Amino acid sequence: MTNAPFPPPGDKTALEHGAALTPRFDANGLVAAVATHAETGEILMLAWMNAEALKLTLDTGEAHYFSRSRQALWKKGETSGQIQSVVEVRVDCDQDAVLLKVRPQGDGGACHVGFRSCFYRVVENGALVERP
Amino acid sequence: MTNAPFPPPGDKTALEHGAALTPRFDANGLVAAVATHAETGEILMLAWMNAEALKLTLDTGEAHYFSRSRQALWKKGETSGQIQSVVEVRVDCDQDAVLLKVRPQGDGGACHVGFRSCFYRVVENGALVERP
Repeated sequence: MTNAPFPPPGDKTALEHGAALTPRFDANGLVAAVATHAETGEILMLAWMNAEALKLTLDTGEAHYFSRSRQALWKKGETSGQIQSVVEVRVDCDQDAVLLKVRPQGDGGACHVGFRSCFYRVVENGALVERP
Repeated sequence: MTNAPFPPPGDKTALEHGAALTPRFDANGLVAAVATHAETGEILMLAWMNAEALKLTLDTGEAHYFSRSRQALWKKGETSGQIQSVVEVRVDCDQDAVLLKVRPQGDGGACHVGFRSCFYRVVENGALVERP
C-alpha cells in the first residue's frame, strides 16, 4: 500500500512531533475522518479517507471521502448539496485519524437521513432514542 | 464475525430508524469511536471498539477500547489515570461509528503525548503545526 502523495510514516517521534504530514493509512488504505461544525463544534459525521481523498480535501478546501461500501472516492455534497467547506484540518498523535472543521453548505446538514448530524441517536438502557 | 452480544444488523430502515443497537462491526470486528469532552465539546481522541469494548463501556460507564496495534482490549486510563467517565453514548446513522461524551479523570487529558486532545496539530500548507 503506497502512501503517495504523502511521505511514508516515520518513527514514533516523527509521527508525534514531526512537522511532516505522513498519514498512517490502514491495510485498506484508509484513515478515519471526523467532521465537526466549524461554528458550533457539533460532531457531524465520521467517514473514511484514502490518500486521494485527503489530498483533494487539502487542495480544494472541500471535504472528500472514500466510501467503503461503494469502494469509491466521494465528494461530500456532490449530490445532496451538503458541500463541506473546510476551515481547518487536524491529525491525531499517531496520524491515523483526521479531524475536519467544516461549514456545511446547502441545507446546513451532513446526514443523508435528514438530521443535521449523523449522531442523532443516544443509547439508553441498551436501546436507541432519537435525540438530534 | 459474530455481532454478539449485540443483535445482527437489520436492513437500512432498521439501521437508521430502529430502536435496536446493532453495531456494524467491520471485517476486523471493529467500529470507530470518537470521544468528546462532555463539558467543552472538544474532540479528545479517536479509537476503536470491538463488541466486548462497547459492551463494557455501556455496562460500566467507563470507556473501553480495542487497540489495533496490540490487538487487545484496553480500558482507557488503566495505566495513565485518564479514565473516561461516560456521560452519553451515541451511534451514527448506519451504526458503524460511536460517539462518546466523557469526563476525563486524572489530569483531565486524553492523549499519551501529553496534550489534552490527540488532535493537537493543524495541517498548514501541507505541514503540521502544534496548536493544542
